[in-house]
Amino acid sequence: MKPVCLVIGAGAGIGGTVGKKFASEGYHAVLCRRSDEEGLQKLVDDIKADGGDATGYLLNAVDEGALEERIEKVEAEIGPIQVVLFNLGAQIGNRALGDTSYKMFELGWRMATFGLYRVAQTVIPKMEARGGGTILVTSATAAVRGNAGQHSHAAAMGGRRMLCQSLNAEFAPKNIHVAHILIDGAVDAPDTLGKMVGAENFAKLRETRGAEDGLLMPEHMAETYYHVAHQHRSSWTHELDLRSYSDLAWWNHK
Amino acid sequence: MKPVCLVIGAGAGIGGTVGKKFASEGYHAVLCRRSDEEGLQKLVDDIKADGGDATGYLLNAVDEGALEERIEKVEAEIGPIQVVLFNLGAQIGNRALGDTSYKMFELGWRMATFGLYRVAQTVIPKMEARGGGTILVTSATAAVRGNAGQHSHAAAMGGRRMLCQSLNAEFAPKNIHVAHILIDGAVDAPDTLGKMVGAENFAKLRETRGAEDGLLMPEHMAETYYHVAHQHRSSWTHELDLRSYSDLAWWNHK
Amino acid sequence: MKPVCLVIGAGAGIGGTVGKKFASEGYHAVLCRRSDEEGLQKLVDDIKADGGDATGYLLNAVDEGALEERIEKVEAEIGPIQVVLFNLGAQIGNRALGDTSYKMFELGWRMATFGLYRVAQTVIPKMEARGGGTILVTSATAAVRGNAGQHSHAAAMGGRRMLCQSLNAEFAPKNIHVAHILIDGAVDAPDTLGKMVGAENFAKLRETRGAEDGLLMPEHMAETYYHVAHQHRSSWTHELDLRSYSDLAWWNHK
Amino acid sequence: MKPVCLVIGAGAGIGGTVGKKFASEGYHAVLCRRSDEEGLQKLVDDIKADGGDATGYLLNAVDEGALEERIEKVEAEIGPIQVVLFNLGAQIGNRALGDTSYKMFELGWRMATFGLYRVAQTVIPKMEARGGGTILVTSATAAVRGNAGQHSHAAAMGGRRMLCQSLNAEFAPKNIHVAHILIDGAVDAPDTLGKMVGAENFAKLRETRGAEDGLLMPEHMAETYYHVAHQHRSSWTHELDLRSYSDLAWWNHK
Repeated sequence: MKPVCLVIGAGAGIGGTVGKKFASEGYHAVLCRRSDEEGLQKLVDDIKADGGDATGYLLNAVDEGALEERIEKVEAEIGPIQVVLFNLGAQIGNRALGDTSYKMFELGWRMATFGLYRVAQTVIPKMEARGGGTILVTSATAAVRGNAGQHSHAAAMGGRRMLCQSLNAEFAPKNIHVAHILIDGAVDAPDTLGKMVGAENFAKLRETRGAEDGLLMPEHMAETYYHVAHQHRSSWTHELDLRSYSDLAWWNHK
Repeated sequence: MKPVCLVIGAGAGIGGTVGKKFASEGYHAVLCRRSDEEGLQKLVDDIKADGGDATGYLLNAVDEGALEERIEKVEAEIGPIQVVLFNLGAQIGNRALGDTSYKMFELGWRMATFGLYRVAQTVIPKMEARGGGTILVTSATAAVRGNAGQHSHAAAMGGRRMLCQSLNAEFAPKNIHVAHILIDGAVDAPDTLGKMVGAENFAKLRETRGAEDGLLMPEHMAETYYHVAHQHRSSWTHELDLRSYSDLAWWNHK
Repeated sequence: MKPVCLVIGAGAGIGGTVGKKFASEGYHAVLCRRSDEEGLQKLVDDIKADGGDATGYLLNAVDEGALEERIEKVEAEIGPIQVVLFNLGAQIGNRALGDTSYKMFELGWRMATFGLYRVAQTVIPKMEARGGGTILVTSATAAVRGNAGQHSHAAAMGGRRMLCQSLNAEFAPKNIHVAHILIDGAVDAPDTLGKMVGAENFAKLRETRGAEDGLLMPEHMAETYYHVAHQHRSSWTHELDLRSYSDLAWWNHK
Repeated sequence: MKPVCLVIGAGAGIGGTVGKKFASEGYHAVLCRRSDEEGLQKLVDDIKADGGDATGYLLNAVDEGALEERIEKVEAEIGPIQVVLFNLGAQIGNRALGDTSYKMFELGWRMATFGLYRVAQTVIPKMEARGGGTILVTSATAAVRGNAGQHSHAAAMGGRRMLCQSLNAEFAPKNIHVAHILIDGAVDAPDTLGKMVGAENFAKLRETRGAEDGLLMPEHMAETYYHVAHQHRSSWTHELDLRSYSDLAWWNHK
């Protein structure tokens, strides 16, 4: 039986592409996303066409019990989850405090912070019982600094980063590798960046910045995700950043 | 009319003592805490006995609308809030992930992160309309690193720190001073440390470490809170740490 | 005998102004700077005209033995040094690596890092023998992030910040307070900013940004320096930032 | 002609092992170290026995011109340097300030900070002219926090980290990848850890902690060094940490 790589947040950008990479290396990729059944099916079909194994589910991560049930069923029906990629973002664009509703603020936390906690609560006991596992967490610059207009996003991601550290502190000695992967730049991802800037602008961005490797490319990011997940336990990385060579690091000013 | 200093989380440690300091300098101290009406009344009486002005309220910060209503009433009945001290903690002691219930994890966020967001949403528009104000936030080491057993606390405080940064980024240019005060050590506070370690151990701690200034003393901390709140706007501090001279900084190992 | 406040780097900006503040509070201000005897004399005269005590010395901090001898003589001839303000900068403007000579790079270190080490080596044993003391270190954003063009400055200040932490770790328990004060913005200082941008631009900056408190004002910064130096040892600050309310924090992007 | 991987600091631990890894992947490994000609020759012979290309040089990095000349000669005689691994440490064990001589403090800087600056000055123009290159810098926890007894080491490594950031800010857009690899734990390295703790203790450490993967293993670390050096430029890592699964991260306390 193949080991399972469970992707929470499997759009056509990082999530789906990392899933493909793991599938191509011998994992059964279990891809979960909130909507776009067609897009999900395409990811699954692509993996299968390449000779890999994949299963897809639509899942609303903020629904009570949805993450927990999915994990239980995957374990029961597909196999032991060796790797989780927690790839849910909570970016809602720049919004002044006055335009950030209570509901938005809470939703950010429910997706980005509480969602990870729930996944950890459900899957870690299983990993611990099996002697190990890996949890990769896609993170954003908002986890390390709060910009104006990022009240919901920064609060959610900052909480998530500290949760990753506390999970790592408790579970690394139990052979569970938690990695916090800080994406510091725009990703060439139609389902997130594409929707945020609109189809036309996205096409332009790809032609200009993208053509010069100025957008983070999911297929290349996936190499690093895979590498981190397979580091020998004598040499684990807990945190790393990823950005395009041509982009300004978050700590730099022009 | 005196300016108001509103303290959310006014126990006998930092909250009440900072309230006293502000009252002694000419503020009307409005002290809010969840329980112990007697203790609250004592704080108010002490301030009045020293010739200051104070009002106390019991208030459960996680109740829907409780923070918002209190702020509205204070503004209507007592006066404009010049300074808020947001002093709610979310420390629940060291708890393994398996002992950290969904409810606990959410409660940590509701108190430490969402509570500050709600206060900011309610009071900042009033401050902005008046041309300025100050929000002091008591924080903890868990805001900058997640230890084992701190899943709920670290997630809540890490989110709070990023929220402080995003509030500062949006509102400092509007003359609203947000300060994140990182308390990196044990505070000589009967309502928090006292309850956590028990009365007997707390008495011992005071006799040993406390006698050598090895516990953070609220009356001395209050001097720094007051100083930060009164910095000239050409020279504001957003973040500072406080610890006893004899304590190891969080980043050091023995 | 008055306690001594020794200022290394006493120009007309932070150094001289903090010296004045300490003198006005009962310290003998010992002001050291590299050049401009006239400017130095003016600072000393101003302090004396206000009824304070001050002595000035020209001193090239990178000369072998210069810092050490000055400290010894001050201790012998004026009195015990209670507070040191180490205020030497190493900013040489933005320079590409190709324009940063070996000599410049080394000079940055000699002033900003090695200078502090030498002061610490000389004065700390005296402070320790007397039971305590205070070392305030003016720092810059370059201590926490390296921008392009800041090779010399960032390397020097980054080293200095880590040195402050190691000094604090060894000597705080011996009642020696080391504080790292991160100045994150342009200071209204004719001897540094003034020289960097030129007299005319500096005059304009003062009329525009300065008039709106958009430059850090040394006389207000001095209040915070003084406050930190007089915190009770149960509640010491090791690191804090200072910037104008209207300035972007270093971690924020527009 | 094979691309060259130049290792500055090629002992039997990280430096030599990363050199071997690159040689096994098609690089000509140029190994430089200060002493132990025999050990150096053994590394070179091992690589050649595995079918790889390697050349070794004894070189004292603090000698004037030594790094510069070596780089020029390698470029002239062996080939273009595609990757530099700057692997010089400056750990001198825990030393109180009183036991840290001026000479030691300066030597730390000369090796760990100035050495990297000199290498960058010499090799970066060549890389820039060729359109790219990679500089991997082995770093230590002392680069991000200063412990007691680490005055020289922390100052040197803190300066180095900021230098890495300023180099990255200037040269990443020119396709030169600078990576700061933070080693947060004891490495299974006879030439460094072995010498620090003594042969007998080192043997014991290997049998106990090492046997449980509790020491960082150079051959596994080398995988990550190699991976980072070969990331696609749309997805570069500037900073990452490495530690054993069973070790406490530097930010955690027990």
